[in-house]
Amino acid sequence: MRTILLLGAGRSASSLVKYLMEHAAEQHWTLTVAERDLAQARKLVQGHGSAATVVELDASNAEARAAHIEKHDLVISMLPHFMHMDVLRDCLRLRKNVITPSYVPDALWPLDAEFKQAGLTVLNEMGADPGLDHMSALRILDDLRSQGARIEAFESYCGGLVAPENDDNPWGYKFSWNPRNVVLAGQGPAARYMAHGELKYIPYQQLFRRAVRVDLGKLGAYDGYANRDSLKYREVYGLAGIPTMLRGTLRKEGYCHAWDALVQLGCTEDGFAMELPASANWADYIRSFLPESAGGDLRTATAHYLGLPPAGPVMEKLDWLGLFGNGTIGQGGLSPAATLQRLLEAKWVLGPADKDLLVMWHRFAFTAGGRKKELQSTLWVEGQDNIHTAMARCVGLPMAMGAKLLLNGKITGRGVLLPVTPEIYTPVLDELASLGISFSEKTVEATAP
Amino acid sequence: MRTILLLGAGRSASSLVKYLMEHAAEQHWTLTVAERDLAQARKLVQGHGSAATVVELDASNAEARAAHIEKHDLVISMLPHFMHMDVLRDCLRLRKNVITPSYVPDALWPLDAEFKQAGLTVLNEMGADPGLDHMSALRILDDLRSQGARIEAFESYCGGLVAPENDDNPWGYKFSWNPRNVVLAGQGPAARYMAHGELKYIPYQQLFRRAVRVDLGKLGAYDGYANRDSLKYREVYGLAGIPTMLRGTLRKEGYCHAWDALVQLGCTEDGFAMELPASANWADYIRSFLPESAGGDLRTATAHYLGLPPAGPVMEKLDWLGLFGNGTIGQGGLSPAATLQRLLEAKWVLGPADKDLLVMWHRFAFTAGGRKKELQSTLWVEGQDNIHTAMARCVGLPMAMGAKLLLNGKITGRGVLLPVTPEIYTPVLDELASLGISFSEKTVEATAP
Repeated sequence: MRTILLLGAGRSASSLVKYLMEHAAEQHWTLTVAERDLAQARKLVQGHGSAATVVELDASNAEARAAHIEKHDLVISMLPHFMHMDVLRDCLRLRKNVITPSYVPDALWPLDAEFKQAGLTVLNEMGADPGLDHMSALRILDDLRSQGARIEAFESYCGGLVAPENDDNPWGYKFSWNPRNVVLAGQGPAARYMAHGELKYIPYQQLFRRAVRVDLGKLGAYDGYANRDSLKYREVYGLAGIPTMLRGTLRKEGYCHAWDALVQLGCTEDGFAMELPASANWADYIRSFLPESAGGDLRTATAHYLGLPPAGPVMEKLDWLGLFGNGTIGQGGLSPAATLQRLLEAKWVLGPADKDLLVMWHRFAFTAGGRKKELQSTLWVEGQDNIHTAMARCVGLPMAMGAKLLLNGKITGRGVLLPVTPEIYTPVLDELASLGISFSEKTVEATAP
Repeated sequence: MRTILLLGAGRSASSLVKYLMEHAAEQHWTLTVAERDLAQARKLVQGHGSAATVVELDASNAEARAAHIEKHDLVISMLPHFMHMDVLRDCLRLRKNVITPSYVPDALWPLDAEFKQAGLTVLNEMGADPGLDHMSALRILDDLRSQGARIEAFESYCGGLVAPENDDNPWGYKFSWNPRNVVLAGQGPAARYMAHGELKYIPYQQLFRRAVRVDLGKLGAYDGYANRDSLKYREVYGLAGIPTMLRGTLRKEGYCHAWDALVQLGCTEDGFAMELPASANWADYIRSFLPESAGGDLRTATAHYLGLPPAGPVMEKLDWLGLFGNGTIGQGGLSPAATLQRLLEAKWVLGPADKDLLVMWHRFAFTAGGRKKELQSTLWVEGQDNIHTAMARCVGLPMAMGAKLLLNGKITGRGVLLPVTPEIYTPVLDELASLGISFSEKTVEATAP
């Protein structure tokens, strides 16, 4: 009997746990779910008999954490990003393979040789984005290259959204993922990407106004804004010299223009505590960002300040949030971003009957057989329900399948790995397709370069 | 004979050193100039006989620094801001009074009681801004309050600029102060100020577009943009409940609109290294901030991207810098801000025959005798030459006069002091006036609230 330890079992671990438990008998494994919140963990394993054991663990307790790791064959860490390195060091010391859905921490690469020497595998970025994006892109890239194609452009977008039938607010957005990350999206160093051989930088104050239209035909029209660093994976993807490469995030069409209004006002600033009392209302909040010369009706003054039509779609979105009304902010002393986040968490809530949506879209421009062509690949996954969301499935299922591959000795790579090799992406993408998570592709003669 | 130790003697110490040497005989003091750059220090003391001694000192060498401090009666620190705390701790331990031109470090306040107990004085913010701004404002505020006036608004602006006769570039600006601070001005948390009883926040992306016109009549028209925290001194100034308070920075009219263009493009970002080679030209630099869709003539494309008239004053200023030309950037791997700084240092150089200019302007709105009035106070100081700049004089002379007051026992305050009491500001402002550095005041019936 093989043993798997899952560290951290928040809501996003639902589909991961379900898969591991459903395959426990067939795969001869057992699962230990180690989580600080026992009630939450028990909810996840409910109804699966003896396949899983729940234990209480504060993962910041080094001794208790190591004791659990030592007793298992494979570790899956769904802990917050900043806690991964401690787990990874434990796994090296205790000789365990480990899987995480997170970006490779900078501090991990220096340990690569030691993991290799110990014959261990650290499989990172094994969720949706990062994860499925790598796998789906690399399968196509490897295929095109095997046919002798020259890749000239690669654009890739992903977004966690809300299913069309539950899309009932003007933003076209509900939270299926960390709200704080959504509010702070794009802050920090300028986004960089390549366009026609030129390196491009987009500072935060331009990021959402520079969103491009991503038209998925019958699947709708979206805004795509650039991720921090589109070029990080140039080498990993074998695209070192590619003239055009951009990775970005999808939102429903119109979202970015309205979000830009919040950015321009200053509502997404996170570097200082506002001095508004909890009893201040949202109109007070907005007014604090307007010049004192902006008199009269607040909604009109805001539109004027931002150079927007007062009755246009952006102002409609801001208005829908109640930003010009007398609802109270409820908690003082927070940053503008944290204050706004509390409002959005109340407004953009994925209800119990709502389904979320995950959309991923790649565009490859290439020359093959002397002709310029374009291949588009689209993934559209709706959540099954409020628990097995598209996000939880697209993050958790690849993780679980990665665990299966590792335990069955199907992954020969050692050291710090990303899922960019056929031995990983082929079985995972094939199995995902069997569960209805599959990309649809179309290749056309190129129109754009 | 009293002994003064000056730590750090860069260019901005010129007028401070000159004053201390000229008054050495009359005041029975001697000066030790401790500086890492001996040649620079010798230049400053040149021609003043035996009044000053120059010693080589790396002020980060704690032992050597303390040995010098121990041998003197008074310490003046003109070291970079981050080095002050070490000096201040030495002074506490070695029982020395000390003067700095810098903002009170946060770590200093907890030592206030110890300095008081030791009977020591730490006189901070004793330069121009901060320094002269406090002194000139407090003299007026104390005077108005002694007449029973109720202060309703206080606005204060200061700018280090270039004298009109040497103002020969379209920006109306040359560096008389730390170029890096000019390039990074306004970055960080949103600026905050009070307007008509409301707290206002301005995020960086709005800061320069929210500049207001400050019209000094015959002295010209200026742009004023808000400082980081206009409210820091509310309590210190006795203005805790004031409805309107704003402190800002002056630039020549039109500067802020053009600087905003650089901000919007991303040229002032400092958080990442650009990947341009040293041989890249300024057009490459600008192009990296434009979308790939911005084709054609770069100047026109930039104007279009920024929503500016291609032949307007902003584009004229950018053009004058050579940002659309084929001059090479000269050094790769710098941040956008550091790359831009190298260009500005070449373009905005205060030439050997140029005079700089320091302008300070206060506006007080108040009610006195049942009538609303307004008092404006203006300081206009031109540099004597390229060495004794307005900046060096307005920073150094108050420092030197503060040293005289301290050594002569005229300052009774102990502990951490700012120059906000009459025992400091009255003699300093009076003596500055005798040297031609004086504020002109006018009081009128109020027009604005």
